[in-house]
Amino acid sequence: MSVSTTSIEQLTINAIRTLSMDAVQAANSGHPGTPMALAPVAYTLWSNHLNYDPNYPRWAGRDRFVLSCGHASMLIYSLLHLAGVKKADGSDELSVKIDDIKKFRQLHSPCAGHPESYEVTGVETTTGPLGQGVANSVGMAMAGEFERTRYNRPGHEVFGYDVYALCSDGDLMEGVACEAASIAGHLKLSNLCWIYDDNHITIEGDTDLAFSEDVATKFEGLGWHVVKVSDANNLGLLNAAYDSFKATEDKPTLIIVRSIIAWGAPTMANTHGAHGAPLGEAEITATKEVYGWSYDKFVVPTETTDHFAETLGDRGEAARTEWEKKFAAYEKAFPAEAKEWKQIMSGKLPTSWDADLPTFETNPKGVASRASGGQVLNAIAKSVPSMLGGSADLEPSTKTGLKFPGAGSFLADDHSGRNMHFGIREHAMASIANGLCLSGYRPFVSTFFVFSDYLRPALRLSAIMQLPVMYIFTHDSIGVGEDGPTHQPVEHLSALRAIPNVAIFRPGDANEVSQSYKAAMELTDRPSIMVLTRQNLPTLDREKYACATGTARGGYVLADCSGTPEVILMATGSELSLAVEAYEKLTADGVKARLVSMPCVELFELQDAEYKESVLPSSVAGRVAVEAGVQQSWDRYLGFRGKFVGMKGFGASAPAEELFPYFGITADKVVEAAKASIAG
Amino acid sequence: MSVSTTSIEQLTINAIRTLSMDAVQAANSGHPGTPMALAPVAYTLWSNHLNYDPNYPRWAGRDRFVLSCGHASMLIYSLLHLAGVKKADGSDELSVKIDDIKKFRQLHSPCAGHPESYEVTGVETTTGPLGQGVANSVGMAMAGEFERTRYNRPGHEVFGYDVYALCSDGDLMEGVACEAASIAGHLKLSNLCWIYDDNHITIEGDTDLAFSEDVATKFEGLGWHVVKVSDANNLGLLNAAYDSFKATEDKPTLIIVRSIIAWGAPTMANTHGAHGAPLGEAEITATKEVYGWSYDKFVVPTETTDHFAETLGDRGEAARTEWEKKFAAYEKAFPAEAKEWKQIMSGKLPTSWDADLPTFETNPKGVASRASGGQVLNAIAKSVPSMLGGSADLEPSTKTGLKFPGAGSFLADDHSGRNMHFGIREHAMASIANGLCLSGYRPFVSTFFVFSDYLRPALRLSAIMQLPVMYIFTHDSIGVGEDGPTHQPVEHLSALRAIPNVAIFRPGDANEVSQSYKAAMELTDRPSIMVLTRQNLPTLDREKYACATGTARGGYVLADCSGTPEVILMATGSELSLAVEAYEKLTADGVKARLVSMPCVELFELQDAEYKESVLPSSVAGRVAVEAGVQQSWDRYLGFRGKFVGMKGFGASAPAEELFPYFGITADKVVEAAKASIAG
Repeated sequence: MSVSTTSIEQLTINAIRTLSMDAVQAANSGHPGTPMALAPVAYTLWSNHLNYDPNYPRWAGRDRFVLSCGHASMLIYSLLHLAGVKKADGSDELSVKIDDIKKFRQLHSPCAGHPESYEVTGVETTTGPLGQGVANSVGMAMAGEFERTRYNRPGHEVFGYDVYALCSDGDLMEGVACEAASIAGHLKLSNLCWIYDDNHITIEGDTDLAFSEDVATKFEGLGWHVVKVSDANNLGLLNAAYDSFKATEDKPTLIIVRSIIAWGAPTMANTHGAHGAPLGEAEITATKEVYGWSYDKFVVPTETTDHFAETLGDRGEAARTEWEKKFAAYEKAFPAEAKEWKQIMSGKLPTSWDADLPTFETNPKGVASRASGGQVLNAIAKSVPSMLGGSADLEPSTKTGLKFPGAGSFLADDHSGRNMHFGIREHAMASIANGLCLSGYRPFVSTFFVFSDYLRPALRLSAIMQLPVMYIFTHDSIGVGEDGPTHQPVEHLSALRAIPNVAIFRPGDANEVSQSYKAAMELTDRPSIMVLTRQNLPTLDREKYACATGTARGGYVLADCSGTPEVILMATGSELSLAVEAYEKLTADGVKARLVSMPCVELFELQDAEYKESVLPSSVAGRVAVEAGVQQSWDRYLGFRGKFVGMKGFGASAPAEELFPYFGITADKVVEAAKASIAG
Repeated sequence: MSVSTTSIEQLTINAIRTLSMDAVQAANSGHPGTPMALAPVAYTLWSNHLNYDPNYPRWAGRDRFVLSCGHASMLIYSLLHLAGVKKADGSDELSVKIDDIKKFRQLHSPCAGHPESYEVTGVETTTGPLGQGVANSVGMAMAGEFERTRYNRPGHEVFGYDVYALCSDGDLMEGVACEAASIAGHLKLSNLCWIYDDNHITIEGDTDLAFSEDVATKFEGLGWHVVKVSDANNLGLLNAAYDSFKATEDKPTLIIVRSIIAWGAPTMANTHGAHGAPLGEAEITATKEVYGWSYDKFVVPTETTDHFAETLGDRGEAARTEWEKKFAAYEKAFPAEAKEWKQIMSGKLPTSWDADLPTFETNPKGVASRASGGQVLNAIAKSVPSMLGGSADLEPSTKTGLKFPGAGSFLADDHSGRNMHFGIREHAMASIANGLCLSGYRPFVSTFFVFSDYLRPALRLSAIMQLPVMYIFTHDSIGVGEDGPTHQPVEHLSALRAIPNVAIFRPGDANEVSQSYKAAMELTDRPSIMVLTRQNLPTLDREKYACATGTARGGYVLADCSGTPEVILMATGSELSLAVEAYEKLTADGVKARLVSMPCVELFELQDAEYKESVLPSSVAGRVAVEAGVQQSWDRYLGFRGKFVGMKGFGASAPAEELFPYFGITADKVVEAAKASIAG
C-alpha cells in the first residue's frame, strides 16, 4: 500500500527521504534510516518555524539548526539542497549541489560522511561524535541570549534568536549531553529547543538493552519544558510542539518525537539494520513505491524547491529585511553599542586591543603564572568585547574571572554577563565554548590541567573546526603538590601536543605569559591552550636575558655563549628558571651552553627553517630538555644524544617544593644531564 | 553554646570531625568541611549497616564503601583508623595509624591528599577526579550482582553484597555520573546506594551559581529510588534511609542528605571558605568548643574505637564467619562452581588459559584485526571466567561479543551474563570496568579508537591504580574511511603512549593479534589497549618472516638483511604489510634493509638494553617509521636522520583505499623515505 504524495508537504518530505536513500546507496556507506524517519520533523521545522534566509545563510539574526546526530548527515545535505541555501562566499552558488550529493562520502565532496562546518555553508557545527552537537547548541543559545540581553534596548528589540538541535538516543546517553542540559536548564535558556528522535533502536539492537530512562522526567528534573509527539509523521502535532517551544519563556524545551527508523521501508523499517548501512537497491525500489515516488534517482521535483522558497525562503527574507531595518534604527540610536556588536561579528580584534598588555618587573620571588595569566586576560578582555568565558567551578583557583566594570556574570536571571559559571562540567564547558565561537565570540574556558582529559573530545573538535577557543589550564604539574597523582598532570603536555592544529603555550615567567596571550589572540584558525602554574615563578631579568617578545616565534634563545655551544638547554614553564640556574652553573664551570625558552613548540615549528636552525643548530648534539612532564614530545629535539630531565611516571602527594627534588627535577640534575650529553 | 557529647555516638562522630580538622591543619592543606559535615552520615552507615570485618578487609563478601568525593579524604582515613581496619598483608597492623594521619599529605604517608587504593587497605578505589568514584561503584555493584546471580544456588545464598558511594555536587554534575546512574537504573542494581551530600556549596560559591537541578526528579527519571534526609545530623532519619535502601529490591537508591559544610565551625560553617583550606587554629579551637571536645590534637578517645569494634566490628565478624560457613557448605555441594569462583578471586590466570589461542594461516587477503581480535578474545575468555565486558553500543562493529555457550548477557532482569551492554556511554563504561577490576575481575571494554578520548580520565585511573583492564579500540586510523575526520584517530596512539603504566598493542596481522592478547593477559599491573583495524590486513607468511611470538618482547626483527643494515624500517598495525612491501622493494633494489615490527612500544622498552640494541643498533642512523598516525611517539627511535611516513593532520571522508595514497602512506613512500634517510 502506498502513501499518497498528493500534498506538496508529503512530496517535499519524500524528496528528503529519497535523496538520502539514493546518496547512501551510491556511496555504498552511510546512515539512511534516520533521515527517512526525521524528514517530516525537519521539514516542519524548516518550512514553518525556522527564521533563516537561504540567500543570506550567515545573517547574524538567523535561527540556528544543529544536526547533533551527525551520522544522519544526508538529512541536512538534503535540506540545504532543497531549501536552496547559498554559499556564504556571495557566489550565488548552492551550498550543496546535486552533484555534491551524488558524491556523498567521496574524496573532495563537501558532503562528508559527517557534516563538517568548514566544508558546507549551513552546517552550523561539525557533528558526529555523539553529544557534541547538543552541547554546542547550548553555547549558541547562550550567545543568542547574551546578545539579546546585552545589546537590545527598550524599543529596539533587534538581537536574539532561537536554536534547534536534533538529537538521537546516542546523543542523550553521552554524559556531555546531560551536563549541557543541566546548564541550559539552570540558565533558563528559553531560546533553546532540542528535538529527540525516540526511535528505540541502537546499533546493538533495541534500546531496551541499555537505555530505559524516563527521558521526560529526567529533563523535567533538569528544569526543561517537555513536549511529546507520538508520531513523527503527524505534522499537526509537530507544529503544535514547535509552537509550544516558542510560547515557553522561562526554560529550554525538549520535544520527544516517537519515530520509526527507515520509515516506509517494507522490510527494514524499525530495525537496526537500517541504521548504518545502505538499504540495497531492491529495498529502495520497494520503499519508493510505498512513498508513491516515481522519479528517477537523485531527481528533485521543482515543486519541492519552490515550496521551500515560498515557505522558509519568503519568511526568512522578510525576517532578515525586518531585522536590517531594526538594526539601522538601533545603530542610529545607539551607535556605540552597534559599533561594538559589529566589531564582535567582524571576527577581528579591535585596534589597540593589546594596548594594556602588562609587562612585569624582574622579581626573584615572582608570581604564579595563573596569577599573571589572570591579570593579562583581564587587560586584553576589557578591550576585546568578544571575549567571554569562565571556569568549571574553579575560578578562585584558575584566576580567570573578568573583574573590570561591566564584565558581569551570565546568570539564570541575567544573561548579559561575560563571566560564565559552568559548574563542575568540563566537557560541556568546552563544547559550549565551541558553540560560542561558532556564534562569533572568542570564548575562554578554564580548569585544572589534569582535567583537560575530561574535555578532550570537545577540544579535538575545536581543532578540527579551526575554532580559536582559548583553553586556560592551571595547576600544570607536580607543582600542584599535596593533591597527589590524580591531580598532577604528567602526560598532558605531550598528549595535547599530539593533536593537530592546536597551539599549546607554557610560558616560563610573567612576561612570557603576557606574550603568550598576545600570540594566542592573534591565532584565529586554531584553539590555543595556556598551561599555567599554581606555584610562583621568578620573573626573569630581561636586561640580562633576551626579551620575552621571542615568545611570538614559539622558541627563542634566552641566553647564549659565544661561538658554537657545546650544549643547548631547552625548557618551558616552571622549569625555565631551573634551566636558567643550570645555564649559569654550566657557564661558571666553563661549559659553552645555550638556553632556549620554548613556550610554544607548535609556533616554533611554524617558523622558517633558517630561524629554527639558528635557534637549534643541527651541528650541536649536546642537548637537554627540562619539563615537569613526560619526555615524548621532546624527542624530536633531543636526538639520540640528548637527555631529558622530567617525569617518568605519576606524581605523589606532598608539598610541591619537596616533589621536584624527589623526582629529580633540579638545576643540578640539568647540569649533570648537560655534561652527560656533551660526553655523548 | 556547646553540643553535648554525652552519647557515644556523638563522641565518635566528633572524633571523625576533629581528626579531620587536625590533620588538615597540620598539613596546612586539604578539605576539612566535608568530613565535618558527613561524619554522622558515614558513622551511621559504618556502625549500623555496613557488612565489613575490620580484621579481614579483603573478605570477598564485604559491602563496599566508596568515597567518591575524594577531596574529603580525611573522612575515610578517620573512619579506617577509628574502625581499626587492618592492613591486608596479614601483619595485624592498622591500615591507617595515627602517625599516618599526622603526616597527612606528606611524602611517603599513605594518607595522600586524595585516597589511593594502592596505598591504603580499605580504600576500595582511588578517588579525586570527580564522578569517577560513583561510576566505579556501579562496576562494583555489577560484580556483586554477577556473583549473586551466577554463583548462588537454591538453598545456598552465599554471594552478593551491597555497595555504598558517598558523593558531592561535583560528582553529580560530571557527565560520567549521569551515564553511570543511567546504566545502574536501567540494570536495576538494587545493591547500589549513592549518598549525595547536598550542601549547596561549590568552590565558586553557592550551587545557585551553576546547579539548580531537581536531583530527586532526575534520578527518578533514571529509574532510581530516592530518599531524602533533611538533616545530616539526624541519625534516626539516616538509619531509616539506609533501611529504605536495603528494603528496595528493584532499583538502586539515592539518599539525598541536606548537610552543612564544616558543621559546627562558628564562622566558617556553610561557607565555601571551609571547602578547600584549613580552618585555622582559632576556628578549630572554637569549633571543638561547640562540639564539647576537650581532648588534645590527634587524640582519639578509646571509647570511640571500642564503640566501632562493638558495632561494625562485631557485626562484620559475625557476617564473615556466617559467610565462611555458608561457603564451605556451598563448596561441598557445588565444587566446580566454588572452584571457578575461587579461581577468579585468586587474581591468577587458570592453567592452560591460552590452550586455544588461535594461530592463523598465511592469507594475502587477510582479515581485519577487529575480526581476528574477536576470535582471539573468545578463545581466551572461554577459559578465563574472570573475563567479562562489552561495548559502548558498538559490539557488531568491534566484534567483542562473547559467543561461546554460557557467556550470556548482563541484562536488567538477569545479572548472570558476561556480555555487558554499556550503551553509548564510553566514559562510564571505562569507569565501571575499573570497578569490576577492583572487584577481582578482568574486564574488557570496547569502542571506536577515536572515542578513547571520551573515556580518557577513567583510563588514566586504570593506569594509576595498576588495574589490568583491557581496552579494545577498533577502527583505528583513516582506514575508517567514509566516516571522516571526526571518526578517524590520528593523534591517539601518541596521546595514549604518553600515559605512564599503559601497554598499547597495535598488532600487524592476525598472528600478532593472537600474541598481543596473550601478552596483554599476562600483564597484571597495568591496563592494556588493543588497537585494531576496521579493514582487512594480510596474514603474513611466518615461514618467510619471523614468528609472531616476538610480539612478547614488544618489538622484534621481522625480516633482515645480512650484515649491518643501511636502514631499519619500523611499523605497526595496518602499516606493517606496507612496510613488508617496502622492505621487499628495497631488498630487490640492493638496499640492505631490516624490518622491525613494533606491536607494543611499551613492552619493547621494558626489554633489557642488549635486546633493544640488537633490534635497533645505535650505529644505524637510516631509519623509517610507518604508522597511520602522527609522528610524535616515533621520534625516540628516529633520531635526526630518521624519516616518518604517516599523518600530519586530520583525515578526510572517502573510501579507505583512496585515503592511504591521498595522505602519502604507501610502500613507495616508505621506499623513498628509506633512501632519503640512508642519504642522510
